[in-house]
Amino acid sequence: MPGSVFGNCFRIMTWGESHGKALGVVVDGCPSGLPLCQEDIQVYLDRRKPGQSKFTTQRQEGDLVEILSGVFEGKTTGCPIALEVRNTDQRSRDYSKIKDLYRPGHADFTYDAKYGFRDYRGGGRSSGRETIGRVAAGAIAAKILAQLGIQVQAYTYSIGGICISRDRFCWEETEKNRLYMPDKEAVREAEQLLEQAMESRDSVGGVVECVISGLPAGIGEPVFDKLDAVLGKAILSVGAVKGFEVGDGFEAARAWGKGNNDAFCLDEAGRIRKETNHAGGVLGGISDGSPLIFRAAIKPTPSIASAQRSVGREKQEVTLEIQGRHDPVIVPRAVVVVEAMAALTLLDLMMTGMSARMEWLHRIYGMEE
Amino acid sequence: MPGSVFGNCFRIMTWGESHGKALGVVVDGCPSGLPLCQEDIQVYLDRRKPGQSKFTTQRQEGDLVEILSGVFEGKTTGCPIALEVRNTDQRSRDYSKIKDLYRPGHADFTYDAKYGFRDYRGGGRSSGRETIGRVAAGAIAAKILAQLGIQVQAYTYSIGGICISRDRFCWEETEKNRLYMPDKEAVREAEQLLEQAMESRDSVGGVVECVISGLPAGIGEPVFDKLDAVLGKAILSVGAVKGFEVGDGFEAARAWGKGNNDAFCLDEAGRIRKETNHAGGVLGGISDGSPLIFRAAIKPTPSIASAQRSVGREKQEVTLEIQGRHDPVIVPRAVVVVEAMAALTLLDLMMTGMSARMEWLHRIYGMEE
Amino acid sequence: MPGSVFGNCFRIMTWGESHGKALGVVVDGCPSGLPLCQEDIQVYLDRRKPGQSKFTTQRQEGDLVEILSGVFEGKTTGCPIALEVRNTDQRSRDYSKIKDLYRPGHADFTYDAKYGFRDYRGGGRSSGRETIGRVAAGAIAAKILAQLGIQVQAYTYSIGGICISRDRFCWEETEKNRLYMPDKEAVREAEQLLEQAMESRDSVGGVVECVISGLPAGIGEPVFDKLDAVLGKAILSVGAVKGFEVGDGFEAARAWGKGNNDAFCLDEAGRIRKETNHAGGVLGGISDGSPLIFRAAIKPTPSIASAQRSVGREKQEVTLEIQGRHDPVIVPRAVVVVEAMAALTLLDLMMTGMSARMEWLHRIYGMEE
Amino acid sequence: MPGSVFGNCFRIMTWGESHGKALGVVVDGCPSGLPLCQEDIQVYLDRRKPGQSKFTTQRQEGDLVEILSGVFEGKTTGCPIALEVRNTDQRSRDYSKIKDLYRPGHADFTYDAKYGFRDYRGGGRSSGRETIGRVAAGAIAAKILAQLGIQVQAYTYSIGGICISRDRFCWEETEKNRLYMPDKEAVREAEQLLEQAMESRDSVGGVVECVISGLPAGIGEPVFDKLDAVLGKAILSVGAVKGFEVGDGFEAARAWGKGNNDAFCLDEAGRIRKETNHAGGVLGGISDGSPLIFRAAIKPTPSIASAQRSVGREKQEVTLEIQGRHDPVIVPRAVVVVEAMAALTLLDLMMTGMSARMEWLHRIYGMEE
Repeated sequence: MPGSVFGNCFRIMTWGESHGKALGVVVDGCPSGLPLCQEDIQVYLDRRKPGQSKFTTQRQEGDLVEILSGVFEGKTTGCPIALEVRNTDQRSRDYSKIKDLYRPGHADFTYDAKYGFRDYRGGGRSSGRETIGRVAAGAIAAKILAQLGIQVQAYTYSIGGICISRDRFCWEETEKNRLYMPDKEAVREAEQLLEQAMESRDSVGGVVECVISGLPAGIGEPVFDKLDAVLGKAILSVGAVKGFEVGDGFEAARAWGKGNNDAFCLDEAGRIRKETNHAGGVLGGISDGSPLIFRAAIKPTPSIASAQRSVGREKQEVTLEIQGRHDPVIVPRAVVVVEAMAALTLLDLMMTGMSARMEWLHRIYGMEE
Repeated sequence: MPGSVFGNCFRIMTWGESHGKALGVVVDGCPSGLPLCQEDIQVYLDRRKPGQSKFTTQRQEGDLVEILSGVFEGKTTGCPIALEVRNTDQRSRDYSKIKDLYRPGHADFTYDAKYGFRDYRGGGRSSGRETIGRVAAGAIAAKILAQLGIQVQAYTYSIGGICISRDRFCWEETEKNRLYMPDKEAVREAEQLLEQAMESRDSVGGVVECVISGLPAGIGEPVFDKLDAVLGKAILSVGAVKGFEVGDGFEAARAWGKGNNDAFCLDEAGRIRKETNHAGGVLGGISDGSPLIFRAAIKPTPSIASAQRSVGREKQEVTLEIQGRHDPVIVPRAVVVVEAMAALTLLDLMMTGMSARMEWLHRIYGMEE
Repeated sequence: MPGSVFGNCFRIMTWGESHGKALGVVVDGCPSGLPLCQEDIQVYLDRRKPGQSKFTTQRQEGDLVEILSGVFEGKTTGCPIALEVRNTDQRSRDYSKIKDLYRPGHADFTYDAKYGFRDYRGGGRSSGRETIGRVAAGAIAAKILAQLGIQVQAYTYSIGGICISRDRFCWEETEKNRLYMPDKEAVREAEQLLEQAMESRDSVGGVVECVISGLPAGIGEPVFDKLDAVLGKAILSVGAVKGFEVGDGFEAARAWGKGNNDAFCLDEAGRIRKETNHAGGVLGGISDGSPLIFRAAIKPTPSIASAQRSVGREKQEVTLEIQGRHDPVIVPRAVVVVEAMAALTLLDLMMTGMSARMEWLHRIYGMEE
Repeated sequence: MPGSVFGNCFRIMTWGESHGKALGVVVDGCPSGLPLCQEDIQVYLDRRKPGQSKFTTQRQEGDLVEILSGVFEGKTTGCPIALEVRNTDQRSRDYSKIKDLYRPGHADFTYDAKYGFRDYRGGGRSSGRETIGRVAAGAIAAKILAQLGIQVQAYTYSIGGICISRDRFCWEETEKNRLYMPDKEAVREAEQLLEQAMESRDSVGGVVECVISGLPAGIGEPVFDKLDAVLGKAILSVGAVKGFEVGDGFEAARAWGKGNNDAFCLDEAGRIRKETNHAGGVLGGISDGSPLIFRAAIKPTPSIASAQRSVGREKQEVTLEIQGRHDPVIVPRAVVVVEAMAALTLLDLMMTGMSARMEWLHRIYGMEE
């Protein structure tokens, strides 16, 4: 099966290239009766829009979304919702030079290897603009989750080697800076690092962390569609992501069992809880009622202004310099994409899980057992 | 959709619980004409079998596989292949004590949360024995890949903090020790660590690394079914895996672009290659012709003999000690499971990719363009 | 995707050949908490078993089903349920003569065309024994539907040209005769026709009709997974079925709109009902609360004792006579298969439909809107 | 899973309502390298467009398609192809009267039952305009099939009781009349019948027949995704279709085995062929190399100008007259829809079948066995 569909119950299909006429997504399976307007989606798209700080590209796209179907009298109808963003700022001439070259760290070579040729304008389908469809659909998923009491919040965990401190962690800070870091001091250090990277015509990577609160226990479909497995796929499918970990992640590989196991206990309300959360909110692939926590490793922006060795379609060796202005870091713009993919995953698995028990079939179809 | 199916073209459905009558898998979509016998599968199952060293459980299961369908006159017919392993050593009495308790680090609580009750015998469906179906199906996938010139090889990369050295790396060593580590010295240190863990009635985690060689460029389905994303899901769906990274992985998040980008070059045969392989063999979610390299973080065995605090179904707080003899480390037994899941992923995506180009449709259906 | 999986939420994978070691099915997604024992399934299998009358094959298979997983303490656990029937009466020698020949009306030629060779013993995968997995899984689906107040009942509508009369229709009669016809007189005539067919070493076809009562309005997923479309696929996938129609079916193609439209009205309880049911219980692909009615056309048994012209693998022209004793009609044995496929379809779509409305998400996940 | 996706390898998702902003489809999995322009699609859409004769609605929609992605420099890239038709002639006021009423024969009631409310303008998602996405995607599939030597051709087989004669069958005639009937005389009679229906403010149904030539043997995926089963689902998913049959269809249910079996023979070129084609080109769910022939029964247009009894949302009994001008028959406009769905089905199954044999994997991936 081709790869532009994500999800089973809440199912999306994205389409569009960086410099095509438009990009978009169709959402199939959105429950009926959700109040929805373009603004609900636009606020998410605005968070991924470039041109918001000196560390992100200055291309001034409007990225205005249009809802073309599936909403009637302000509410979703249960029919597919088509969302579309027209491309308005396509400067194809910028890319003509690299038309026959394979940029290091990009998918130029592999698209040619797979499909025989490629839309070379701005990376075509492999461009970061491909995430528009993800974010637009994710905005709807996040709104539904919010109505069910579930919050999905991501932020920049580190840029280059600069990592947030758990002690200084401050949610409000995230919204106050364009790096989306919940730690004022880390922001300052990271900004310095980014200045250096720009001076060196280079780029840096980083890590995005995401916390989901309010998620009920019981979400996830063993054994292959475990919550963390599907989430991992969702996040690893985002361009530039090279690693995924949940809870203590790779740290758990260095831990001992006694320290890594989370003891169960009762909270004041007498509900079963875990004393710690090394597991990151998932046991056996099913949510355990604790906050779900995961991280994504993001590589440095592959487009750098420095000279790089490469080869071209005709197997000629070349030195190329990627022109134009590029983000020295992708991480802050990836934050909302991570949120979107997490929301899509959670909602889809929650909808899937609705038929897990006979008593729930009775609850919907109204018969006595 | 429920979670016991993996793959689209080469599609498997696994079933069975730790202490049920049997475990197995059905493989749908295996191409016809592959020579296949039970021994092809048994050798893989034997590698995951417990009781092979003092660091693994002594339960003496035969785990003998039976092929029930889909093979005729020694070759696959293209029809579904049913593989089955009967359980012979079911000591259900061992588990009666924990019937109503939630073991820390296990899925007891979450299965109850999801399904309302659970098969508590030996972890039921969440037991490590669930991997029998994965490994049996993976053996078939690996055989097909081998015929296409592709090798999938995993090994223990680290146990606790003890990591293999790239300098001492030796493939042959992997088969010579029961920790499946390709570094003699690391094995010695790791064995000492494991002795300590056993004395402390505790356990340790570790990392499995996997290298796939011979994979052609062009495999993977952007944007959601990218090679690394599907592989990540496959690996993260294995019990106890808490993290996944490809190529430099989380290290890339600390790197700079110039150092992280792999320059393209021509090899002696004039083919396009990468000078380095920070990417781990995948660009834009599509294989690039370099070896595919990834790692999985595995948590310490949750079953430990030490006393642990927990609660039970009736919300009573308890102290429990898990009886019986448990592996102080799962990592070595996970090696073949990682290989199996990688083989299943690669083959499935290769089969999917067969319809990517018009010229390939012509090649199969034999008409002139 | 290969073709041995049916359903999305209640998902089955069948396997096995006529003369292999066993046949079976794995059911993934069965809700937890359903009381289930082997007898629940055996009663359905017994209805499709041959050797029940002189008009069905005398092969004395036990066809005893074994539940291998997914049931614990008498209830389904939510984990995959593996069901298996071992083959005990395999007379492979009966088939050696037709090993290299293509029987008219059978799939011998097409399996060779697709897979390059075939398991020729008793039709291999294309045998009627393949339906064992369908019926076993369908028995579970039917039990769940029954708990939700839904009855699926099929019967023989016609054999050859002999059709039941709506005036003489009598449910009880169906169980009293081995042709499963709800009309005593039609049974008598059909039996005479079958005697003639046997004397002529020939066979006849027929039609199965199925009525589903108690189905709530609202089931079906427009636009491609409409209730009648998925049902049609389910029924047409049964061997020998050549046609499917719902409600007035092909008769509607000859009707006029005024006569064919079903007027809406209120019943005594003030609920919205249809005055007539030309539609057969489905409007726009969604159930309308009226009984769902459909028919399947079944061709005559292709295995006949008369001499037939054919060719072989080596392209030699031959005359063949199919030996052994064959059913002069398949229709009565198809009745339970039709019921099983209908139950699988309905349950799957009902489970899918659970996430169709925001209010239903709230009902399961318990938050206030 | 929601129902707006069709196909696995060549996979489409349609969207849009009768009176929304636009309708469209996204095609995922189209092989790269196919020459494609808007005109290729427009010619198909023009065939389903209303206003072409006095027997079809006079709404003058342009229905101009726009290709928004997936095509670069005149060829498909392998990335998703988004196709869109903007609605230009939306007269919502026409429908305000039936806003709270349930039209007999329409899906108004069932959409309300499923989703709690509905887009009542022009039938919303259940309108015949929904087929725009099917036809647009089908045009691409048909172009690919044509390149592989396969022709899909449908025509009107009957209108009301007026049926074409096999003796007078003439392909050219089909294009010469707006009823798409390959029989001049039948056209004349059918036109008279339609005049009568219009005078009576009533409508009639009919049958569409479709012939696929050039299809290789070996297409179809037993046991659930048999060629005829998937085709049946595709056709039954089209609005107003109430029955589907392949080959002799329901006639086979009245036939005897000797007459119904198609003997195999050798043609002049020494290839294996069938002497007759009662089977309609499929045996055991796999194409047999003969022309594939099937028929779809289509009910009379439910929108009729005559007064009809019905009820409304508030459970009030009413008499309604559907205003506006409606087609007295849908059949001719369904012809291209049937072709489109058949093309989508065949191509998808052909792409699926590419991985059926080991030798085909070798043929694509180029290694020696």
